Amino acid sequence: MESENTVPDRQYAPLDESAAAAYAATRPPLRRDGSDPGEVRAHEVGDGNLNLVFIITSQSGRSCALKQALPYVRLVGESWPLTIQRNYLERQAYEVYTTITPDLVPSIYHADPRQALFIMEDLSRLSIVRGGLVKGRMFPRLAEDVARFAAETMVHTSDFYLESGEKKRLAARCINPELCKITEDLVLTDPFHDALSNEIEPELRPTMETLWQDTRVQDATARLRYAFVTRAEALLHGDLHSGSVMANSEETKIVDAEFAFFGPMALDIGMFIANLWMSAIAHHTTRPEDPFARDILAQADRTWRCFVARVEALLLDAPVWRLPDGARRDYLLALARDAAGFAGAEIIRRTIGLARVADLESIADRPTRLRAKTAALAAGRALLRESSAIDAFEAAHQVVRRSAGLAF
Amino acid sequence: MESENTVPDRQYAPLDESAAAAYAATRPPLRRDGSDPGEVRAHEVGDGNLNLVFIITSQSGRSCALKQALPYVRLVGESWPLTIQRNYLERQAYEVYTTITPDLVPSIYHADPRQALFIMEDLSRLSIVRGGLVKGRMFPRLAEDVARFAAETMVHTSDFYLESGEKKRLAARCINPELCKITEDLVLTDPFHDALSNEIEPELRPTMETLWQDTRVQDATARLRYAFVTRAEALLHGDLHSGSVMANSEETKIVDAEFAFFGPMALDIGMFIANLWMSAIAHHTTRPEDPFARDILAQADRTWRCFVARVEALLLDAPVWRLPDGARRDYLLALARDAAGFAGAEIIRRTIGLARVADLESIADRPTRLRAKTAALAAGRALLRESSAIDAFEAAHQVVRRSAGLAF
Repeated sequence: MESENTVPDRQYAPLDESAAAAYAATRPPLRRDGSDPGEVRAHEVGDGNLNLVFIITSQSGRSCALKQALPYVRLVGESWPLTIQRNYLERQAYEVYTTITPDLVPSIYHADPRQALFIMEDLSRLSIVRGGLVKGRMFPRLAEDVARFAAETMVHTSDFYLESGEKKRLAARCINPELCKITEDLVLTDPFHDALSNEIEPELRPTMETLWQDTRVQDATARLRYAFVTRAEALLHGDLHSGSVMANSEETKIVDAEFAFFGPMALDIGMFIANLWMSAIAHHTTRPEDPFARDILAQADRTWRCFVARVEALLLDAPVWRLPDGARRDYLLALARDAAGFAGAEIIRRTIGLARVADLESIADRPTRLRAKTAALAAGRALLRESSAIDAFEAAHQVVRRSAGLAF
Repeated sequence: MESENTVPDRQYAPLDESAAAAYAATRPPLRRDGSDPGEVRAHEVGDGNLNLVFIITSQSGRSCALKQALPYVRLVGESWPLTIQRNYLERQAYEVYTTITPDLVPSIYHADPRQALFIMEDLSRLSIVRGGLVKGRMFPRLAEDVARFAAETMVHTSDFYLESGEKKRLAARCINPELCKITEDLVLTDPFHDALSNEIEPELRPTMETLWQDTRVQDATARLRYAFVTRAEALLHGDLHSGSVMANSEETKIVDAEFAFFGPMALDIGMFIANLWMSAIAHHTTRPEDPFARDILAQADRTWRCFVARVEALLLDAPVWRLPDGARRDYLLALARDAAGFAGAEIIRRTIGLARVADLESIADRPTRLRAKTAALAAGRALLRESSAIDAFEAAHQVVRRSAGLAF
């Protein structure tokens, strides 16, 4: 990554399209080896909740993307301030990822911490996976690639692969209190009581009232939240859902790493699989005869199998600390149980929480949408109730099929 | 704490007695309100493994202690370098403790990070508890005070009492990679294989060979080590044994906090109780008819009961996050199991590891000493094998009585 600046960094101010174009025109990759990029245009495409994203193209045919943090949560507005330092933390995470799985993350060309922005590879050739799944598009490399990303980046930043001092110093550099607090609140706390941030369609309220009274659900979410806030096991992406993955049939890139922090290894993979399960539930409810729901369920299963196989292989080969056989088996079982639990929490919050998902929300027919959401809530609740007793992740898969009525 | 300096701080150099006296003469508490302390004398009393400790007295009748870190492990010599920054970390821990349990830690009067020293309250009126226990002295407040220290300082620095961002920032400030590595190696790794750092009397080698082949012991120690390196639950003392506690019949002070870090809450209390159990084993082996062993065993039991009662009361009253009942019960059970496990590891390493304890080593009669060590190793091994299945800490107590042959 080049960090040389041709114009001095200025104080932070959100860019508009023309400012973004002017900024990028003088910096890599558009200006490289002193060449003139010609006319440069920027187009703001950010559809996320937190940032500006510009796609920038030059007359000379080069392109890039510029990501800048906004000092508030875009979804909610300026009333919810949020540190722009997350842009620095995201870039730092990409730097670590680039040393481990360079093919699965975008290249970063330039970073400007004062402006809370970086310039990265233009990924316009790829689609956001969630949008593709909603349209019934399959991504053949998705399961393998996401599983490889999660397994490799986590195990390589754990105490199995890093000397303990190096790992502790990296973890301290990666503390991300503000974005962790969002997950703590919006994923692991608010959906499990009658919080103002929830968005519950009236017909679903009785289901939620029951869930809020379910002591097994309350105990399970407390356990997951405690794991989230205390267990600094490895560098996580922290927000690894189908909207944070871009892909086509040949390649996969993991993006939006601004939630990165050292946390429990089960979180990322559980959250990602939960989003595949929600896609399967939405498709099955909408078009029960279409095989897509079954295919996406198979992808969820495949993601776990690839993930756990790679984690186990990496643990067996660990250079710093190799677990004895029994401890390794216990570790992998705990990983499966925690992943199933985090998946359950993710499904609940994505169905009735503040940040919901297009998979369910885009079902225009109201009765169908309510049936899909009811099935999702049943799956999430069953996962939370049963995850701590499963003997393998495949059992969580069966819990979802049974509780959400995925009958095939 | 006053941090004003009357003489500029100099570069680090270990002090001798006259330099320590000269240093302290111009600083609090000896020079206070500009008064002349008169003649000042220093006497080096450090009997620990890592530091210089001077007791400094003035003609005017004031006294204090000066603790300075050495840049190597004193026990081993200059061949084992060790960061002097630990002195800063120790003082930082005292600052936190002072806000929570001021009566249980020494007052700190002056700190000089560049010289890696601080001046603290003279505790000469108190005895180091380990030495007292070896001589058969009972400290009536010990169980309650140590339990209160551990419970209060840990719960108040946990996610139950601190907002998550505040806790994460404090934990990052308290990372202590070098001293944690000592615990990782000397407590949780080396004693469980044939490491050069171990000191095993020849007669005990067959016992250790068997222990090193015990897969349940290996799995248990791997689980404890993983908890130690990943679980940032609360600010721990990190080295809370009977040599880190000073007491008389009226008061108790916790000292030697340089291992402080954010770790698993069960470590400190498990380690401390393990040292009481070793004392009981040593006394029972030496003088089976003397009631002291039974009394000290009762103190160990009392320490746990006071600790867990106070932890539970604090959790029930938590201002930031109150666990639901089931999760709180699970949490306390996990705490008991982990404490029993850490106690098992501590007993093994204090019997055959690099830093052994006077309780066992001071038994001059060789056959008696070997019998005591054999009983200790049996207790440690049984704790490691059985801790993850106990249903309350009282069961660990029974494991120790049975395995170490404490028949009363």
